Amino acid sequence: MSWSGWGDPAKARELPEPVLALLRDLLGVRAPGTPAAALEAVALPPVVLPEPVLDALAKVVGEHNVRTGHEERVRHTRGKSTPDLLRMRAGDGSAAPDAVVLPGSHEEVAELLRVCSRERVAVVPFGGGTSVVGGLAPDRTGFAGVIALGLGRLDRLLSVDEESRVAAFEPGVRAPDAERLLAARGLTLGHFPQSFEYATLGGFAAARSSGQASAGYGRFDDMVVGLTLATPAGTLELGRAPKSAAGPDLRQLVLGSEGAFGVITALRLRVRRAPAERRYEGWRFASFAQGSAAVRALAQEGPLPTVLRLSDETETMIGLAKPDEIGSGRSNGAPGSAGSGGAGGSGASGGSSGGAAGSGCLLVAGYEGVRVGSRHAAASAVLARMGGEPLGPEPGEAWERGRFSAPYLRDALLAAGATVETLETAGFWASLPRLYDAVRLALLGALGSPLVMCHISHVYETGASLYFTVVTPQDADPVAQWERAKAAVNAAVVEAGGTITHHHGVGRDHLDAYAREIGPVGAGVLRAVKAELDPAGILNPGVLVPRA
Amino acid sequence: MSWSGWGDPAKARELPEPVLALLRDLLGVRAPGTPAAALEAVALPPVVLPEPVLDALAKVVGEHNVRTGHEERVRHTRGKSTPDLLRMRAGDGSAAPDAVVLPGSHEEVAELLRVCSRERVAVVPFGGGTSVVGGLAPDRTGFAGVIALGLGRLDRLLSVDEESRVAAFEPGVRAPDAERLLAARGLTLGHFPQSFEYATLGGFAAARSSGQASAGYGRFDDMVVGLTLATPAGTLELGRAPKSAAGPDLRQLVLGSEGAFGVITALRLRVRRAPAERRYEGWRFASFAQGSAAVRALAQEGPLPTVLRLSDETETMIGLAKPDEIGSGRSNGAPGSAGSGGAGGSGASGGSSGGAAGSGCLLVAGYEGVRVGSRHAAASAVLARMGGEPLGPEPGEAWERGRFSAPYLRDALLAAGATVETLETAGFWASLPRLYDAVRLALLGALGSPLVMCHISHVYETGASLYFTVVTPQDADPVAQWERAKAAVNAAVVEAGGTITHHHGVGRDHLDAYAREIGPVGAGVLRAVKAELDPAGILNPGVLVPRA
Repeated sequence: MSWSGWGDPAKARELPEPVLALLRDLLGVRAPGTPAAALEAVALPPVVLPEPVLDALAKVVGEHNVRTGHEERVRHTRGKSTPDLLRMRAGDGSAAPDAVVLPGSHEEVAELLRVCSRERVAVVPFGGGTSVVGGLAPDRTGFAGVIALGLGRLDRLLSVDEESRVAAFEPGVRAPDAERLLAARGLTLGHFPQSFEYATLGGFAAARSSGQASAGYGRFDDMVVGLTLATPAGTLELGRAPKSAAGPDLRQLVLGSEGAFGVITALRLRVRRAPAERRYEGWRFASFAQGSAAVRALAQEGPLPTVLRLSDETETMIGLAKPDEIGSGRSNGAPGSAGSGGAGGSGASGGSSGGAAGSGCLLVAGYEGVRVGSRHAAASAVLARMGGEPLGPEPGEAWERGRFSAPYLRDALLAAGATVETLETAGFWASLPRLYDAVRLALLGALGSPLVMCHISHVYETGASLYFTVVTPQDADPVAQWERAKAAVNAAVVEAGGTITHHHGVGRDHLDAYAREIGPVGAGVLRAVKAELDPAGILNPGVLVPRA
Repeated sequence: MSWSGWGDPAKARELPEPVLALLRDLLGVRAPGTPAAALEAVALPPVVLPEPVLDALAKVVGEHNVRTGHEERVRHTRGKSTPDLLRMRAGDGSAAPDAVVLPGSHEEVAELLRVCSRERVAVVPFGGGTSVVGGLAPDRTGFAGVIALGLGRLDRLLSVDEESRVAAFEPGVRAPDAERLLAARGLTLGHFPQSFEYATLGGFAAARSSGQASAGYGRFDDMVVGLTLATPAGTLELGRAPKSAAGPDLRQLVLGSEGAFGVITALRLRVRRAPAERRYEGWRFASFAQGSAAVRALAQEGPLPTVLRLSDETETMIGLAKPDEIGSGRSNGAPGSAGSGGAGGSGASGGSSGGAAGSGCLLVAGYEGVRVGSRHAAASAVLARMGGEPLGPEPGEAWERGRFSAPYLRDALLAAGATVETLETAGFWASLPRLYDAVRLALLGALGSPLVMCHISHVYETGASLYFTVVTPQDADPVAQWERAKAAVNAAVVEAGGTITHHHGVGRDHLDAYAREIGPVGAGVLRAVKAELDPAGILNPGVLVPRA
């Protein structure tokens, strides 16, 4: 993983001249962004953890698993939001941990939490490092130091119960590895957020991730049937049955806890048979409103496709993720690669048949698994009845091929002098038009004339998510520029009655808005749980839990 | 509602001679039970709440809504478990509240909680009064008195958002009234537990109810998209979107909180179009194991019927709920009325076609709503492939007709000198055979030769519930007799790895086992939440939250 961008540096892309022209002509991007610093040049704060504390940590995990080297610290600094990347590119390593500590078992995690509680060391559980909400930059005030608790050694598939369709994993397993391990038995999780290539199972649970195939496979929280949580107060072992009336569902208190209540050391996940059949295709709707009505009909009356995704007019037209086609007149190709699970630019070009290229709104529907034929037929009938025009398989298949590539594109745009960032919310169906307008207005107000694109990619009977991608020219201080825009959007979302995040999490970037969303009584509940499980307050301080 | 039994006294049934013969000959029931005391003869403790406190309560809700009359207190004493009924029949009103207080708004509930916190008055939120787990008998130690907070005046449908398919209700709406109000708009909740006729929406949420049609409509917790909770610490307003990644799902902390954290004063519920089409039918499987494999196939590969229910060999054979047919040789009729949502006896007779009457295991499958034809065809193909023999519509339709009548039968059995009670658990598929054996063994060990019947009525991809009905002759102290059996079952369920309750709740009857299920760290979390929301500890003391 690139330390200052997304993914495999070998997959980095440069922007072709037509895109650069578009940035210049449409958005007014005038100068390239500051080139990324060299890794060696990143300025890190000195390691302040006292030697005896480092020794105590080494006693738990072994000396080799307490790392204080420059590169290791840089690679565990911050996450993958655009402000994170802008700061890292600028060589700002001020949020670096003092050390990266790599436990090899639940027991070692538990012992580390005891040592860190005693020594007042802040602990940042670190899975794939793909947070886009500031979830990996703790507030170190009052602590002797900060460690990143790297979960990479906890990377085993523990067991598979094929009868119950439950697989138990350690938290540090990356999503592609989980799929590979399951595929060997003909099984799948079906969780494909945009962060898929790097994110870990523990991170999915801690951040309540939702993948691009959530219509068919559910959100990650739907998949978690059991959890083991190591906390400073002891171990919490949850999940004796799929569902229960034995009190509040405490699993739902761990899901979304973002490392602030404990460290997930094992997950028991519902798995499914790997799909034998896949079918993806595109549809065109005249407007976002018409397309929204169609996806609502599928969500409420069924049958749901496995993947269901509707781009608004701008996202459909821009097709940002096919940069070689933008402005080239070849915009009648496939939709873009924008996903729904993480950072990155987004977009989808127009359909390949019928009507003017780029007009209307593109819908992608994907069908996987059982009864693909009958589900496709029934869903297609609904889409046609709601005014959709079938575009055939090409736009759907192209979307599927490119589904994880948008974050790579972001790096190229940052280098070119544009800021690109994503943000998302969710609400009930009746509230979505107001929410959509409110977010767009906030972005226009804060940024002048940015490009704002939106899609619906997670639907429920009672509502849906809205996922926005924004592109704007960088000003002299692009971090501050984006923070102003983000603050305006956060306020607008709360005001319009949406939730501050559908699948990115709270972290630090959403903390104030989250406090408004759950109110003082809700915040008090979180603080009470935190105080019970983490009395020394060492776990990811400053993240998730609103201050009193 | 009968104060010492179930439901409308006009619907009470007497047992016909063949059933009485069966009780004598099969179970050895020798003497009729003690006749139920007259309401006037129930012994109530004196009202100990001081006059100034009663005045303070009256100041909040009006004098007419603070009731201390004999009948009102009797009718708010305990719930509807068999031990509850045995005690009430014996004229034991020792668990009666000092007063029944009836607020008319959220604000009045909030103010009552302030007054009661100040005056140290224990508060039992009281909806339909159908708890079967001791959820309505608080521990009054250390309190100035106890009030039942009756929710009957909070009985309004607040709003319907047809676009989002969300209806907002006050908590005291009884389920039949909710369905009637929704039916006027062509909508339904689809929640039909056995307690349907009397239970309230707030109670469903507080106890994590699950209805007989959970395969199609989901559990009640699946239906709750928003909640308002009045607590002594203030109001909690939850649910801005169907799903969110904004931290832990705090709705799931209120669901199942059984009145111990606050009083639900409004619910926003997902509703569906009322089904235009219904189709119910029966299938026979050679064994419970073969039938279980079939329902598992439907749960894992789909499509799920709306109702799916499999009786074991004993339940199939006994057909307890068709008492006029038991022992009469006419056991080839319809299955019984046993439901899954509350108190009462249970059973199902054999099928009406093919094979010997009463042999094997009866499965009931019901299809409602959309695509009934194609779902029925696909599910039937799975059932046939898994070895099922179709029995036609009669067994299914008869089950549907009688689905709420089993609790009436219980009253007749209690009067005849038999104890009948139900209990339930859930686990992952691979654990169910062990769980099934463990519960049966515990009952046989504690009760000698009881009749033990079981069905699966709630299925998930990873597991299912097991619902047991037990019939045994009463000994001289039937309450103590049952408590011994219950303790043995509780221990067996915990030991075998199941959850202590799938949809009845924790109350007091499951409290010790629940504490073992969630462990000391989980119990600490509940206590911390309780202390935060209810610092004086007035809410349903002794229920749900394990002691330190």
